[in-house]
Amino acid sequence: MRYIDLRSDTVTHPTEEMRKAMYEAEVGDDVYGDDPTVNRLEELAAQMVGKEAALFVPSGTMGNQIAIMVHTKLGDEIIVGANSHIVQHEVGAAARLSGVSYSVVDNPDDKIYKEDVIKRIRDEDIHNPTTGLLCLENALGNGTVVTLEEMEELYRVAKEYGIPVHLDGARLFNAATYLRVEAKEIAQYADSVTFCISKGLCSPVGSLLCGSKEFIKKAGKMRKLLGGGMRQAGVLAACGIISLEKMVNRLEEDHQNAKYLAQNLNEIEGFSVDLDKVQINMVFCEISIKDFNSKEFVEYLLEKGIKVNDGGSIFRFVTNKDVNKKDIDFVIDCIREYIYI
Amino acid sequence: MRYIDLRSDTVTHPTEEMRKAMYEAEVGDDVYGDDPTVNRLEELAAQMVGKEAALFVPSGTMGNQIAIMVHTKLGDEIIVGANSHIVQHEVGAAARLSGVSYSVVDNPDDKIYKEDVIKRIRDEDIHNPTTGLLCLENALGNGTVVTLEEMEELYRVAKEYGIPVHLDGARLFNAATYLRVEAKEIAQYADSVTFCISKGLCSPVGSLLCGSKEFIKKAGKMRKLLGGGMRQAGVLAACGIISLEKMVNRLEEDHQNAKYLAQNLNEIEGFSVDLDKVQINMVFCEISIKDFNSKEFVEYLLEKGIKVNDGGSIFRFVTNKDVNKKDIDFVIDCIREYIYI
Amino acid sequence: MRYIDLRSDTVTHPTEEMRKAMYEAEVGDDVYGDDPTVNRLEELAAQMVGKEAALFVPSGTMGNQIAIMVHTKLGDEIIVGANSHIVQHEVGAAARLSGVSYSVVDNPDDKIYKEDVIKRIRDEDIHNPTTGLLCLENALGNGTVVTLEEMEELYRVAKEYGIPVHLDGARLFNAATYLRVEAKEIAQYADSVTFCISKGLCSPVGSLLCGSKEFIKKAGKMRKLLGGGMRQAGVLAACGIISLEKMVNRLEEDHQNAKYLAQNLNEIEGFSVDLDKVQINMVFCEISIKDFNSKEFVEYLLEKGIKVNDGGSIFRFVTNKDVNKKDIDFVIDCIREYIYI
Amino acid sequence: MRYIDLRSDTVTHPTEEMRKAMYEAEVGDDVYGDDPTVNRLEELAAQMVGKEAALFVPSGTMGNQIAIMVHTKLGDEIIVGANSHIVQHEVGAAARLSGVSYSVVDNPDDKIYKEDVIKRIRDEDIHNPTTGLLCLENALGNGTVVTLEEMEELYRVAKEYGIPVHLDGARLFNAATYLRVEAKEIAQYADSVTFCISKGLCSPVGSLLCGSKEFIKKAGKMRKLLGGGMRQAGVLAACGIISLEKMVNRLEEDHQNAKYLAQNLNEIEGFSVDLDKVQINMVFCEISIKDFNSKEFVEYLLEKGIKVNDGGSIFRFVTNKDVNKKDIDFVIDCIREYIYI
Repeated sequence: MRYIDLRSDTVTHPTEEMRKAMYEAEVGDDVYGDDPTVNRLEELAAQMVGKEAALFVPSGTMGNQIAIMVHTKLGDEIIVGANSHIVQHEVGAAARLSGVSYSVVDNPDDKIYKEDVIKRIRDEDIHNPTTGLLCLENALGNGTVVTLEEMEELYRVAKEYGIPVHLDGARLFNAATYLRVEAKEIAQYADSVTFCISKGLCSPVGSLLCGSKEFIKKAGKMRKLLGGGMRQAGVLAACGIISLEKMVNRLEEDHQNAKYLAQNLNEIEGFSVDLDKVQINMVFCEISIKDFNSKEFVEYLLEKGIKVNDGGSIFRFVTNKDVNKKDIDFVIDCIREYIYI
Repeated sequence: MRYIDLRSDTVTHPTEEMRKAMYEAEVGDDVYGDDPTVNRLEELAAQMVGKEAALFVPSGTMGNQIAIMVHTKLGDEIIVGANSHIVQHEVGAAARLSGVSYSVVDNPDDKIYKEDVIKRIRDEDIHNPTTGLLCLENALGNGTVVTLEEMEELYRVAKEYGIPVHLDGARLFNAATYLRVEAKEIAQYADSVTFCISKGLCSPVGSLLCGSKEFIKKAGKMRKLLGGGMRQAGVLAACGIISLEKMVNRLEEDHQNAKYLAQNLNEIEGFSVDLDKVQINMVFCEISIKDFNSKEFVEYLLEKGIKVNDGGSIFRFVTNKDVNKKDIDFVIDCIREYIYI
Repeated sequence: MRYIDLRSDTVTHPTEEMRKAMYEAEVGDDVYGDDPTVNRLEELAAQMVGKEAALFVPSGTMGNQIAIMVHTKLGDEIIVGANSHIVQHEVGAAARLSGVSYSVVDNPDDKIYKEDVIKRIRDEDIHNPTTGLLCLENALGNGTVVTLEEMEELYRVAKEYGIPVHLDGARLFNAATYLRVEAKEIAQYADSVTFCISKGLCSPVGSLLCGSKEFIKKAGKMRKLLGGGMRQAGVLAACGIISLEKMVNRLEEDHQNAKYLAQNLNEIEGFSVDLDKVQINMVFCEISIKDFNSKEFVEYLLEKGIKVNDGGSIFRFVTNKDVNKKDIDFVIDCIREYIYI
Repeated sequence: MRYIDLRSDTVTHPTEEMRKAMYEAEVGDDVYGDDPTVNRLEELAAQMVGKEAALFVPSGTMGNQIAIMVHTKLGDEIIVGANSHIVQHEVGAAARLSGVSYSVVDNPDDKIYKEDVIKRIRDEDIHNPTTGLLCLENALGNGTVVTLEEMEELYRVAKEYGIPVHLDGARLFNAATYLRVEAKEIAQYADSVTFCISKGLCSPVGSLLCGSKEFIKKAGKMRKLLGGGMRQAGVLAACGIISLEKMVNRLEEDHQNAKYLAQNLNEIEGFSVDLDKVQINMVFCEISIKDFNSKEFVEYLLEKGIKVNDGGSIFRFVTNKDVNKKDIDFVIDCIREYIYI
């Protein structure tokens, strides 16, 4: 049975072209630097985000954590958003892998502003850890995008204080699509950036960590330390190349589908979406219906062939390559049926 | 020259009686458990806070950090106040020594409430660290005291979720004095508690970490690991015994002096103290005077023989054993002179 | 140009059958537990080593490090061989990821014996860390195999003291082949075991960490923490299934080739191999020739289309699926030519 | 009852003069840098070991661990002796506090030689941690002393590779006494050095960590992080000043007593001491007597008023200020009585 899977864009299946590319991939032992396909992907990635070099890693989490490992010194404090992926979804890795503490910014819109950074920077007092890193996200986990102006201002203040900036750009190309700019225009405001090829870009596995040559050299050792060094990784990199060359332009379609879904949901009684915040491929929908049973709702949809995560009273729907407009129509019909009948 | 030192209560000098006690102290090698004076202090401390056992440590920071080391497992997340001593003044030690992350509560009154705890407790999802500890303070760093009812509620919710509670009671006896209860009535709502004998209680050095026998046994090993195991520590413990037996009752005097100082400051133009928040021996005074130069103000007071920390626009004055009411009068006179002349 | 690559068995290329399997692999999002191919590989792996469960990880290093993370508590000491992969080739990860120290066993044959373990187990003295894990290897990095009797004895003594045992079985199936037993007969003497599908078993990427259900559940979270959680990992797992079903039996051929190479090398003047120690697919050859220039030797071989690592005066040659007996003959001819002409 | 305590020199009681010094000590809040007595001790210590600056810490363990924290980067490997205090008696702290691994040197005489260092230095290969520190001891835990020539050679090779050297000189002044040199002549071959005032030098509590100004500045922050910052520590420092000014010269007496004890023990049947190795105040005595019950032996001595640690078949006796030659005679008599009667 084919499912309409709106749980995440991580669920996208590799395309036929990707499968062929894996089949034919020229490979080598990447630990020896011998895999030509990995090398090609890394060059392409670096170029697309405007950095000197890139490193292929098994996941966005590893990309972010390696960035923290390389940028910080043991015991540093890092400035992060309260709802960022690093704080919320990486199993508390930063304290364990790098021995760093969070200085958490907790704004209602999940954005970090210049003033948040300035007041969190620690002076040299003997009681203070050193502020070692500013971690940004774009797009944010709430589906909104940080503007170039906001990025620039944050980057400038960090540089003033000599603090490096890492950008978790898991959905960097979605952000770029929304802003109608190239990814590198966003990434210029960070010293290092992670982006994923396994989400909207449809590759089966992997992310790229990008930065200066020196940074990536150190990152390579940290990847080895974490056990992320893979042998004939070219089979995965072959897909990544297709992601970067052919899947970036189709993200616009996911965004359109998300907006379409959002508008239609918003018209259903008890369903409410802040349309201004539907900027990429994510729809956050608040459901306020008397006696609404979220678990039952999820099960109902599953019976109809639709997969969603149980969000309690706030559901997240993520559009992706494997969901087309007709699917969205079907989803809306099913939800209407559930609510009105 | 004798200074009136309002920077902190950590600056208190040992009393004549303490100096004699050091001189006469019966000592032994505490690493072998041979120091009878240390043993006596630890028993007395445990009894006064209603715990099974206690451990003498060189500082409150070490007491707090050992508590985190014993209560948590590597990679856990701990719930802490944004302005707590652990987060603000312990050099980011928790991440380094225990590999734990902060889940920070950031309320305007620096208190942690039941709801803050509940929403921060993590479930078992694969992306989540385990919530391993709730850290409380009483008195708080802003000079206010958490009530017994608030303590009880927090403790109850933590226990419901099986989460241990550590109380940083650096000024536990000040809190007890304000609440007009025994220290153990507060400490009953925590599994472990640290308090300092070197602040208002006037000992030259040290704090006590208190908890169950099993907890303290593990804590003893952690003290060794951190290099806090001291040999003939009885010379210090002798002072601590005097702190607990004779200095607790005089904290009321510090509180009266703080109130007196606060009321008088409040009457000076441009100086403003929230009197309701002067609950222990600390006065936080906001200064809003045109062209006020805080550095110059500090230097002026120093010339007069008064030491205060430069607080920018919010000054903290801490009363203590070495500052009497006449001193306070002199301080107020000096400040008046500075402002009005 | 096709190279004869004797640097390692990690260099093996995926077979045609593996490439087809990748092309056709049924996949899902493994972080959601949805990838049927990964699930199948993990079941098969667990069964073959006689454990309850298994976890697919990107590398043997990650498998070993996760085992240490799950078995130990922060601050423990682990017993390891001085030349083990964990000590020598994992970038010091154990101290960083788990905060554990090594208690190193340094025997000339790289084996750990019962007495080594017993004398390294720490008692509860306050100066001592807790002995938290015994790490074994089979086959060893020097190409020899630990017997079942030796394994059993080590396991028994560890269990007596309540210490868990992890087996780094990167080449577990080579060891089993040499001992003419099933892999699970070796693995029964360990609580957890890692083995690689990317070495002699020819898969492009990956290792399996196996143990009890409870252990693997915890391991899954640690994999997420390290960034080893992969999305549609089924494309890699499809190869792993072929490795386990079809490539195990061919390891015998690699062993025969290694012996054949060893015997022939041994007959070359100045080349000396301890034939008794050629037990799996590795040949360690000492070269004692006046004015022998190892770098030049490596370059000479490369020109002939043969890749070897520069070992100074002790070279390691590793046979593998992509090297047949005719290749070995060619290698020997080339070396003879180099030496005698 | 007065005991003759040969368990360690850590058991020494403060002298009358020290007690008076504590009584009279001028103190201040050392966290604010205000304690004049601490400042004086630190200057004196720095000068005596020929370093720019010094830091007063509660224990030798803390001194050593802070040195590791300051010299290394997270993930480094440090070269240490298998029987060193750092490896054997500091609860595995280095892995926990600094995330470093041991590269262990295991020689029968507990010394580290130039070749041991050279072969343990790691190159930049991606599998290797960085070699971050060489840890030496003088005197060694086995009671022998490393010569100036040996120290110089080790220091030179470390500097060649750009590796810092820390010297655990817990009994540095004993080593200097044996070598008939000033302490600074030994300490010149290390970048940082710890020595204890609480052992043979009789202070109740404390050690000094010495090094460059920059090193000590960083060390001060690490002391704060570990909770080793003490308030009116001048009461302890006052004793330390006496240790350095008046107790160094009397170590020779402890050494003479140790030799005298050693010679006499050696003449008892079944007792054997390697006299060449009695270089400081420690006597290691092997006991090989049929049916010898070490526990019973310890209890027998205790009844006689003599405290020794149960060493199984190798007993360590440590002479110190509180044990005079007559005491030694008594000890020998008691042992003779036990053995021959």
